[in-house]
Amino acid sequence: MARTPSLSGFPEWLPQERVVEQHVLDTLRRVFELHGFGSIETRAVETVGQLLRKGEIDKEVYGLSRLQDDDASGKSDPNALALHFDLTVPFARYVVENAGYLPFPFRRYQMQKVWRGERPQEGRAREFTQADIDVVGDGDLPFRYDVEIVLVIAEALSALPIPEFRLRVNNRKLSEGFYRGIGLEDTAGVLRSIDKLEKIGAEKVAELLKSELGATQEQAEAALKLATIRTLDTSFVEQVRALGVEHPLLEEGLTELEQVVAAASLRAPGKVLADLSIARGLDYYTGTVVETVLVGHEQLGSICSGGRYESLASKGNRTFPGVGLSIGVTRLVSRILSQEFATATRSVPTVVLVALNDDDSWAAAQDVAAQLRARGISTEVAAKAEKFGKQIKYADRRGIPFVWFTDAEGVHQVKDIRSGEQVAADPALWTPADEDLTPQVVARLAD
Amino acid sequence: MARTPSLSGFPEWLPQERVVEQHVLDTLRRVFELHGFGSIETRAVETVGQLLRKGEIDKEVYGLSRLQDDDASGKSDPNALALHFDLTVPFARYVVENAGYLPFPFRRYQMQKVWRGERPQEGRAREFTQADIDVVGDGDLPFRYDVEIVLVIAEALSALPIPEFRLRVNNRKLSEGFYRGIGLEDTAGVLRSIDKLEKIGAEKVAELLKSELGATQEQAEAALKLATIRTLDTSFVEQVRALGVEHPLLEEGLTELEQVVAAASLRAPGKVLADLSIARGLDYYTGTVVETVLVGHEQLGSICSGGRYESLASKGNRTFPGVGLSIGVTRLVSRILSQEFATATRSVPTVVLVALNDDDSWAAAQDVAAQLRARGISTEVAAKAEKFGKQIKYADRRGIPFVWFTDAEGVHQVKDIRSGEQVAADPALWTPADEDLTPQVVARLAD
Repeated sequence: MARTPSLSGFPEWLPQERVVEQHVLDTLRRVFELHGFGSIETRAVETVGQLLRKGEIDKEVYGLSRLQDDDASGKSDPNALALHFDLTVPFARYVVENAGYLPFPFRRYQMQKVWRGERPQEGRAREFTQADIDVVGDGDLPFRYDVEIVLVIAEALSALPIPEFRLRVNNRKLSEGFYRGIGLEDTAGVLRSIDKLEKIGAEKVAELLKSELGATQEQAEAALKLATIRTLDTSFVEQVRALGVEHPLLEEGLTELEQVVAAASLRAPGKVLADLSIARGLDYYTGTVVETVLVGHEQLGSICSGGRYESLASKGNRTFPGVGLSIGVTRLVSRILSQEFATATRSVPTVVLVALNDDDSWAAAQDVAAQLRARGISTEVAAKAEKFGKQIKYADRRGIPFVWFTDAEGVHQVKDIRSGEQVAADPALWTPADEDLTPQVVARLAD
Repeated sequence: MARTPSLSGFPEWLPQERVVEQHVLDTLRRVFELHGFGSIETRAVETVGQLLRKGEIDKEVYGLSRLQDDDASGKSDPNALALHFDLTVPFARYVVENAGYLPFPFRRYQMQKVWRGERPQEGRAREFTQADIDVVGDGDLPFRYDVEIVLVIAEALSALPIPEFRLRVNNRKLSEGFYRGIGLEDTAGVLRSIDKLEKIGAEKVAELLKSELGATQEQAEAALKLATIRTLDTSFVEQVRALGVEHPLLEEGLTELEQVVAAASLRAPGKVLADLSIARGLDYYTGTVVETVLVGHEQLGSICSGGRYESLASKGNRTFPGVGLSIGVTRLVSRILSQEFATATRSVPTVVLVALNDDDSWAAAQDVAAQLRARGISTEVAAKAEKFGKQIKYADRRGIPFVWFTDAEGVHQVKDIRSGEQVAADPALWTPADEDLTPQVVARLAD
């Protein structure tokens, strides 16, 4: 485990590790579908023009060019191709292109790889899987979807074999309204500074606010005071009110965030924190913003982020507002594996190896296997009629729990090679214990 | 359906089309796992050196370069990165890198996207999904795996909503032994010419054999006669023997192919054809070779190809022989959709929409939804307390079959909006019909 990948930043899993990753993806899919999110996939490739549509990209993008093509001029061409660096930009394009075919509000999940040409470091990879859910409206989208999507993600993360997590939720309207209320009009600039709070500390942020944005000492202090407010219930509302700032946008943001936190404290208690320091660097968010930490693993960074954007996409004068969250699957799985939060009981799907008496019994063994498979029991047939000891060893080496024997008279027996117990069995009836039917992902108890 | 993708060669599916693709992928996964194949994924990116390891690439490869990086010199650098064009080359690398951790014979399936910078055309895409199964041995691999893998693929394809298909199987040893037996030593050259048989016809192949390989008229005729042999049972053996050619390699190939066809005619009757014209362009195959056609859709090209390779990979003097087949998932799904071989009953996973009486009933509606979801029933809650007619229309537009109503006294009713039938229901007990629980993929009856 935790082997160094042969290409830096491009992790690959061993079969038993992949069982854990599949469990994570299957679990997310199940929860998302239970909540009415359907699957889509978008191509891995976008035009550079599309990726640049929202202005400058702060991600390192991989451009594509045909190896056999000597013309290397292509990169500045907006029609040149590049790999997507997230699933939001491609999804926005997909919505615009297919708007006529989609039932709005459109709910989708999307679990795909994305690529970033960054220097690899702890918790960051160049190729990684994201799992996104979004709800997108045509023209408008009720705020209730913000509440809902936070609850769905809390339920999805709760179903994974990970330690305690906390969604840290804020609202851009609340922050921006507050800054305007204290007379700071460059709200994007303030957000950018506040975003650095955890990295550089309050004093340096205050200096930035003063030197770069011309804030007074009082304004800087007020902005920082707001950022210290953190509550698991709706008491943040009173704490903000106590700061004595007034602005219509602030009121709107307070009401929205209150709805999220009220529902979450009821339905996902302890999992959602109103955290008024959360800013999110990207500037297309317009309301709810979310980051998520694994408690005790904060240095891993956010494992799930997103929020509300009033115009994810537009087509003529039609706009598509949305709210969405994105889980960093690879980041989570890497941590699950390196910390052994969970392990797979075996690396193969196989439950039974059908042993061979002699070389001519292969066809009969295939008949046994077909009967077992017809009832959903994963089965392999030995390829060579080696000594039984060798065939058992083969099963043992692969982690297959049962070996099936059929003697020359057609009498069937099945051996649990872990306990050594061997019993008579009928291929039309024998069934393994539930926990042996598929590889199980067993969570380690929380420390 | 069959919309033109916005980027030529990069197909994307609408939600209801994606349901069909997911059904195909889920079905393949189920069959592969029932036969003891476990999942792995490899990174999408290889070094150019790795991709070129087996010599010249006849595929158009997409190279990667960081968009922000002005240095365009990288392409000839063997450490430059490129997207994989199949799953075999990355799998070979994975086996070598992880040999110490894998239980041999190692059985894996792999379902991932691959990329080729080709001119897009009927049945070809630049980005497409392949589903591969391979068994790889350490040092040796019994021939029985060739038989097994053909049977697994026949079972997997039979489980898909596609028309009749036929695996066309040949054996390189058979062909090469035959050519040597008639005195043609450049067997690779003969195979390359025979490979063109369907495209250019027998006469032109005979001319090629004579002009390019110096074959006599008799030699050319004999090679072409071999290529006309096609049988659904083992009678091909006698037909080959009747040609009166002798060579030890030919005997070996006949015995091997006979084993495959004998087992297949018993276990997958009518699905596997001994077809002695099959050559496969790539030259790393050393025994069994397979191509697969959809009957009546031959112009689509092969939907599943592969075979035996004696040294997929090597590490020092350790070699890893393998046998594997690759299903062209995107090619199949495109055809399923364009010909409507199968359609999804709905595009959303949702079974029930819980309607709102008034704006304050959202929390109670969430309680109903939670009870349904706890029993595996996909449920959405309306976001706004619009008139019931509007809420029903919303469900109808999204294809959700049931709407749930709870009146002010807490009395529950559920309406099947297709039939209009409305009945009293308990959220802790009500269950939809099996066929309504998830979107079904319904195969159209064969013409």
